[in-house]
Amino acid sequence: MSHQESLTAYLAAFVAELVHSGISDVVVSPGSRSTPMAMVMAEHPNLKVHIHVDERSAAFFALGIAKITNRPVAILCTSGTAAANYFPAIVEAHYARVPLLVLTADRPPELREIGAPQAIDQIHLYGHHVKWFAEMALPEKSVDMIRYARTVCSRAIAIAGKAPAGPVHLNFPFREPLIPQLDENLFRLTERPQGYVKVHSGELLMGDGHFQQVAARVDNRRGIIVCGNIADERFANAVTMLAEVLKFPILADPLSQLRSGKHELKNIIDTYDTFLRNEEAKAFLKPEVIIRFGAMPVSKALTFFIKENPEADQFVIDGGGDWRDPAVLSTDMIFCQETSFCEKLLPYVKGNSSPQYLNDWQQVNTVTKESMTKVRELPELSEGKLFYQLAELLPEEATLFVGNSMPIRDLDSFFLTNGKNIKVMANRGANGIDGTVSTALGAALYAKSMYLVLGDLTFFHDLNGLLAAKRFNIDIHIILVNNNGGGIFSFLPQAEHPKHFELLFGTPLDLEFEHAVKMFNGRFTKITDWEHLRLEMEKSQDIKGLNVYEITTNREQNRAEHREFWQFVSQEISKFVKGEF
Amino acid sequence: MSHQESLTAYLAAFVAELVHSGISDVVVSPGSRSTPMAMVMAEHPNLKVHIHVDERSAAFFALGIAKITNRPVAILCTSGTAAANYFPAIVEAHYARVPLLVLTADRPPELREIGAPQAIDQIHLYGHHVKWFAEMALPEKSVDMIRYARTVCSRAIAIAGKAPAGPVHLNFPFREPLIPQLDENLFRLTERPQGYVKVHSGELLMGDGHFQQVAARVDNRRGIIVCGNIADERFANAVTMLAEVLKFPILADPLSQLRSGKHELKNIIDTYDTFLRNEEAKAFLKPEVIIRFGAMPVSKALTFFIKENPEADQFVIDGGGDWRDPAVLSTDMIFCQETSFCEKLLPYVKGNSSPQYLNDWQQVNTVTKESMTKVRELPELSEGKLFYQLAELLPEEATLFVGNSMPIRDLDSFFLTNGKNIKVMANRGANGIDGTVSTALGAALYAKSMYLVLGDLTFFHDLNGLLAAKRFNIDIHIILVNNNGGGIFSFLPQAEHPKHFELLFGTPLDLEFEHAVKMFNGRFTKITDWEHLRLEMEKSQDIKGLNVYEITTNREQNRAEHREFWQFVSQEISKFVKGEF
Repeated sequence: MSHQESLTAYLAAFVAELVHSGISDVVVSPGSRSTPMAMVMAEHPNLKVHIHVDERSAAFFALGIAKITNRPVAILCTSGTAAANYFPAIVEAHYARVPLLVLTADRPPELREIGAPQAIDQIHLYGHHVKWFAEMALPEKSVDMIRYARTVCSRAIAIAGKAPAGPVHLNFPFREPLIPQLDENLFRLTERPQGYVKVHSGELLMGDGHFQQVAARVDNRRGIIVCGNIADERFANAVTMLAEVLKFPILADPLSQLRSGKHELKNIIDTYDTFLRNEEAKAFLKPEVIIRFGAMPVSKALTFFIKENPEADQFVIDGGGDWRDPAVLSTDMIFCQETSFCEKLLPYVKGNSSPQYLNDWQQVNTVTKESMTKVRELPELSEGKLFYQLAELLPEEATLFVGNSMPIRDLDSFFLTNGKNIKVMANRGANGIDGTVSTALGAALYAKSMYLVLGDLTFFHDLNGLLAAKRFNIDIHIILVNNNGGGIFSFLPQAEHPKHFELLFGTPLDLEFEHAVKMFNGRFTKITDWEHLRLEMEKSQDIKGLNVYEITTNREQNRAEHREFWQFVSQEISKFVKGEF
Repeated sequence: MSHQESLTAYLAAFVAELVHSGISDVVVSPGSRSTPMAMVMAEHPNLKVHIHVDERSAAFFALGIAKITNRPVAILCTSGTAAANYFPAIVEAHYARVPLLVLTADRPPELREIGAPQAIDQIHLYGHHVKWFAEMALPEKSVDMIRYARTVCSRAIAIAGKAPAGPVHLNFPFREPLIPQLDENLFRLTERPQGYVKVHSGELLMGDGHFQQVAARVDNRRGIIVCGNIADERFANAVTMLAEVLKFPILADPLSQLRSGKHELKNIIDTYDTFLRNEEAKAFLKPEVIIRFGAMPVSKALTFFIKENPEADQFVIDGGGDWRDPAVLSTDMIFCQETSFCEKLLPYVKGNSSPQYLNDWQQVNTVTKESMTKVRELPELSEGKLFYQLAELLPEEATLFVGNSMPIRDLDSFFLTNGKNIKVMANRGANGIDGTVSTALGAALYAKSMYLVLGDLTFFHDLNGLLAAKRFNIDIHIILVNNNGGGIFSFLPQAEHPKHFELLFGTPLDLEFEHAVKMFNGRFTKITDWEHLRLEMEKSQDIKGLNVYEITTNREQNRAEHREFWQFVSQEISKFVKGEF
């Protein structure tokens, strides 16, 4: 058996199994040690191979594909620091529960830890941030070793996908020569040609006894439901039906996908981030029960509200079986698939006899919405109004990806319920500003129409990511909110300490991004006013490729506007709560 | 004791101790959780605080400062994926033995692993790639805790600096509020105001008995000395004196800093990468003894030569006490500080009675150099000739930083001994193409005049790094060898398999980098011919700021030229060895 035959058969079996196990996209970064795997992958007719030079961007690009398709995506790089560049996206995937199959090429054991070039210690390289790590055996062609390669592949993908989903790392040692033998029978498997082992993976489901207990504690009480992102598409219907019977309002995080869609929207509360800053509203709406699904919401106001109600029964439901309770106030941790929880609880609850509490929430929400129309009057380009406008301007079934720091918070405050089925995405696993451009571009590959809103620091951090737009001809509309620095710091206590503020936090970049956009063959448009934005958004659906729309704002003015707005709305809400309406 | 007082006193003590322990540069990336440390650092009059938005570039920038100053540099970032972005530079620092003090801010224990925003598991985040990790205690102001903060600081810096040098990671949990109280007595320490504990760190030194044994085995034999990079500046004199007595040629890797300088140059062999491709030369120069210092050399030809002489006594000297022997042929591992080894061995060796073997090496080297002048005749811009020219064109005491992949190999082949005291640098810990721009810029802060030569993929990979040039007004001359893709792959076996070659390995970017250079306020010059390059290099010393000179080459033509050249030189060497000269 020649080296080349062993190498080829082993990798062909692995790659064939990748496809049988549901992988359709791989993101490959060029390198030498990874040559055999890259060449075998490129040969497979059912595998889309995306080449991305910068491994940091590459991994985020894969994350974006995995997020929008809800399917695991594989990434491949060579040995050395290439693999270390994957780390930020792996950490994000771990906390955001996105399945990634991380494949790294390595020196064989005899070339490790002896100063060989480009050899680093890749064993458990990503520590606790992957769900599983396996050091693969050297390629062999025996029946046993082919079975091994196929099993590990299927197993790794299953582990990445099962709740809570996340990244898995396989490290492949390869000896030279690194060239496989490609022929037309490459992927013809003698044993079990349709896939070696299919993984049937169960979910966390609870028995009836539990539901009886929970029902008794939530029925006929003043309760709210708080929803973060849940990947399961059936969840929206299940939770809205439960809320309707319980007469609980649903406080829908912008990433919950509940603010728009085909489900029942009437119990959805979307302006809580604004009205829960008002002490009177908080007292008026005091809950006895809080049921929470998914990650903690973006809204700090809501987080404080949850913290300020320690006497409420707080149920945290997690299908991943994890402990998601930063308020440290849960009375009940429920490890159960979220849709199933809603559906199975339903027959046990009698339902609330009075809709009063729900009505209170709905009315405060309505008052807030009405006073929010004040935002509409702002004549100058501003960060909050942008999202208010986007809800009107974005097309049906658009995907809106938002950067972290200020945009996600403005989205939360100002992007309200609408009937357009707009999918909202962000990297909220670890809330980093890194990799945003690449994640959005990966998602854009499979999105109907992609709109990305992000700040200048976030845009700069992943400028390299734009290469994907150019190389893969991706259609994307990027709204760059350029306030020349870190806008969020103006809202933090350090803003009161001017001495080192601009140096350490303001960090103005003073960059004209038009140059970079040109380099990547993009179209750059400087938005002059709201009317200009409207016109650009209206025609955007017919415009292909990379499009960047810059909106210049001012950090100081932005802060003042936000404060003024919150103050105004707060007064209106107080009037309502006091019955002065 | 208020929270703010504790926070301030603890961090002020830590930062004061940083300075007492020899840290003068910190590279800080903006963030919220790291606010208290950043503010205290900015307040210290003897600390240079460099702000860098992209943590990946920031860490490489710090690496560059540490490499050129031979002093530890601190880096600081906030919690979350920010810290993960440090990973590539940490891995490089680990293998390149560069001291880095990595400071990460973190959520306090009660906010970890419960789904709190921007909280990731930062305990042992960098695994085996740091020399020491410590999870710091929460800030307190008691005498004991101030002593603790100062001791850990001093200790961490000592560990980072002692051989083998490398990165150390301290993780700081901070509770809100995050604002310290800055006043003029901030750094006034009551106890031991001039530094808490000074670390006196010894080196690996051997006893006389060992040297007698080694001397007996190297005296009067056909031996060679192979030198990689050794940070100790006294090493050049010590090793050249030893070589002169032993009559051993010194095969000087371009990063050994032995190819130019004030030491004795006559036994330095600088064209071995070319002539050791010739079988007759290898047989003619067969050694009985190989003494090797530092990392493995860049040259593959030399690596093969070492491997092809298993019967030789192979001594590997490492002051870091590590096992640097990828050829797996060492007969003797010598854990001893390298300069001391040379100096202490000298009195025990009688010296070689015949200079014949040394003369043979010198003559082959001379013949090779003479036939290399053929490169000079190449009329068109080409990658090999570039380095040949640079040895002539660079100014006295310039620093030449080279990218990995092709430039370092061409440097090895074509950048020959010269009397200009040119310092040569590269990232050869893990040989990555990442972070090159940033490392060179960090080094440029303290270099007399910095010239960076790198390929287009390497330039692209760290394009963000250019922000430092703009923000800190760094003077740098970047020679961008643009062959539109991965040039090195044309020299690897996959070049014979055209099917997926351009997709997987050639990876043409088709970017006009002029746009990016403009965005960073740089001067972009497209070099038209050799005369143009000469003129630009001549006036370069008077030109400040960021300067990029693009040299467009062709991958196919480059490969053909290299092959042709090696063939020609090989024929000349064969003639000489056979006595046909």
